Amino acid sequence: MPILVDIRKLTIIGKLIQHGAKNVASSLSTMAGIEADVQIKSLSFVEPSDIENEMGSGEMYHASIRLTEPPYGVFVMTFDDQTAATIAEEMTGQPVEDGALNQMHQSALQEICNILTSGFIDGIANTLETTIDMETPTVEREHTSEIAESTLSHIRMDSLSIVLDTVVDLAEQDTEFQLHIFLVPDPGSFVNIIDKLDIEEIKNKDSLAEFYEGESTF
Amino acid sequence: MPILVDIRKLTIIGKLIQHGAKNVASSLSTMAGIEADVQIKSLSFVEPSDIENEMGSGEMYHASIRLTEPPYGVFVMTFDDQTAATIAEEMTGQPVEDGALNQMHQSALQEICNILTSGFIDGIANTLETTIDMETPTVEREHTSEIAESTLSHIRMDSLSIVLDTVVDLAEQDTEFQLHIFLVPDPGSFVNIIDKLDIEEIKNKDSLAEFYEGESTF
Repeated sequence: MPILVDIRKLTIIGKLIQHGAKNVASSLSTMAGIEADVQIKSLSFVEPSDIENEMGSGEMYHASIRLTEPPYGVFVMTFDDQTAATIAEEMTGQPVEDGALNQMHQSALQEICNILTSGFIDGIANTLETTIDMETPTVEREHTSEIAESTLSHIRMDSLSIVLDTVVDLAEQDTEFQLHIFLVPDPGSFVNIIDKLDIEEIKNKDSLAEFYEGESTF
Repeated sequence: MPILVDIRKLTIIGKLIQHGAKNVASSLSTMAGIEADVQIKSLSFVEPSDIENEMGSGEMYHASIRLTEPPYGVFVMTFDDQTAATIAEEMTGQPVEDGALNQMHQSALQEICNILTSGFIDGIANTLETTIDMETPTVEREHTSEIAESTLSHIRMDSLSIVLDTVVDLAEQDTEFQLHIFLVPDPGSFVNIIDKLDIEEIKNKDSLAEFYEGESTF
């Protein structure tokens, strides 16, 4: 059965994602004291069966959660060893030796993953004027085939996956790191949300946010 | 009136764009003897009213055409002075002095714009197993507000615009240049095309193309 959406409402998906990224930056600042610019470098749509391929090959860190409220589905964030080391060193001030994260590094990584995940989902929820209940992510290092299998096992294989290349650019250091985000909502629930949203209303929110913050990022 | 598309078919838009980019690379090779890698760095959806903003400010070169067959609408490619100079020098072997393009530079720029434009549109058309008739683009340098006004005057303001950041990386030189592409199809005609396409069929075409070319780009 087709799950229909007005094609002119696709601009809303971009807006939602931008609001998610903006909220990640704001969460990093308030919850971790990290000033950063969070940019979405690319947005694409793939089928769930292509996700493993999009994740790359080999072992990756990932923070995955299931959304227990609309738009349901899963949120998966992946990053490589280099990014994990960069984040861990940045947060703890301790160098990572031979790529091995100590207990403190691991806690810091878990903390940042919590902030990034909840910041992103809350940013989307705020725009929707709702909340989206979610679990706390478990951060693990696994082969991409295992990540795809464990996180996507509950997903309808005809779902739509939104893939984001995200760059977090730390203001004070000459450091940036890349995150790969996979958002696989339940297609019916997602379309239902988009249908209810008004493009003009979202634009007004952008204007209001810019008015209060005195800046325009988008 | 809503113009509905099955949300799970959005993956097809990405595939169409990738096939367009692949055909640009192939056209550059066969028609201009230039070996290049053509990458889509980002794809986003905006409303036509946001296009001027997306084009940036100031004067830009642009090659614009109207499509006279489905999906109709307009195709606009913009690039800055630096890119124009890079292309002109690359094609003619003559340096551009003080940013001023001579007659030979201008002809070369027009030629490359013809190849890029027809390569992209033909790549999409091939995937759709059809042809898309189009005009030859006129290359002009104008203020972005003028470009937006002249190219979008026939467009329904509730259309969907696909915005692509494209990088053309020349194999032999350590040179790359950026192009901004705006594809604003007639929404009804575009949805009609997407509706008729089968995801599995497009995948098979990818496999077939890879088989013949002995490589996998996508």
